[in-house]
Amino acid sequence: MENWKILDSKYIIQQPWATLRVDRLLMPNGHVKDEYYVLEYPSWVNMVALTDQGQMVMVKQYRHGAQQVMVELPAGVVEEEEDAAEAARRELLEETGYAFDDCKLICQLYANPATSGNLTYTYLLTGGKKIQEQQLDDSEDIEVLLMDIDAVKTLLFENKIGQSLHAAALFYAFNAIDPR
Amino acid sequence: MENWKILDSKYIIQQPWATLRVDRLLMPNGHVKDEYYVLEYPSWVNMVALTDQGQMVMVKQYRHGAQQVMVELPAGVVEEEEDAAEAARRELLEETGYAFDDCKLICQLYANPATSGNLTYTYLLTGGKKIQEQQLDDSEDIEVLLMDIDAVKTLLFENKIGQSLHAAALFYAFNAIDPR
Repeated sequence: MENWKILDSKYIIQQPWATLRVDRLLMPNGHVKDEYYVLEYPSWVNMVALTDQGQMVMVKQYRHGAQQVMVELPAGVVEEEEDAAEAARRELLEETGYAFDDCKLICQLYANPATSGNLTYTYLLTGGKKIQEQQLDDSEDIEVLLMDIDAVKTLLFENKIGQSLHAAALFYAFNAIDPR
Repeated sequence: MENWKILDSKYIIQQPWATLRVDRLLMPNGHVKDEYYVLEYPSWVNMVALTDQGQMVMVKQYRHGAQQVMVELPAGVVEEEEDAAEAARRELLEETGYAFDDCKLICQLYANPATSGNLTYTYLLTGGKKIQEQQLDDSEDIEVLLMDIDAVKTLLFENKIGQSLHAAALFYAFNAIDPR
């Protein structure tokens, strides 16, 4: 099975938080798709972050797409000229004030490969210690939760981690911590 | 923690495959976010579909966001005036030609609750029989794969199911089939 060929491409909007492109595509069977929409994003990171006491650092925040407050993994965007592991450590420090000894990649996933090409990298970090206060600006409101691993596992198995990237990441993390 | 208040809202684009809205939001701390982008989509369904021989029905197709051919769960969109379980059965029949005895909801997840509010429902279907040929139009190219459950489990644990909604769904499905 072959990739489809881009015949033409133009941007509808290019903003820091929304970049939407429309492509004209040639399929291998000769069919032309006139309007295929693609969302462009930078790489993202999710962090399964354990303190030196063995607790998991989670965050609670309002998510305006779903219009509800949700419990999630700490997460963020990989900045230009930064590698994903650096971004994981930087975002954790800013969002939670914790620094970690080890940082290991455990999975990489697409949020939706039909509509966007960016990968989300999940890191398992261990040995976390709080070394500073959260560093948020006025446009952020993030509550840090320290949870027992079993409590997070219960949330996951009860389908209460609503973000699919985070649910998948936690399954990989629990398997990395305690292999099947 | 409270929801943020929508002060103003306007559409950038409203197309069948791309609806992008920009909201002006008031945070509880008084901060106003001038441009918060939200993507509107219908509900989606993913299907973990087992034949009466105990094989899993998977699909292979080109995904233009990621610009690669991927192995995925059968999936689709819930049409208006259709419930999600009906959509699961209809999409499976169209994409694969299989009909199923049982259909059970096993999880519901947001692709990304920061940017969109639609849920993806995952159904576990069993007792599948091929009753007709695939019904695709020229704009679709989907190869049906019948895989042993263990082979899909291996793909999942090797991080080769790249779509996060599908990876999470498969973890829930394997747990439903064979509880931890």
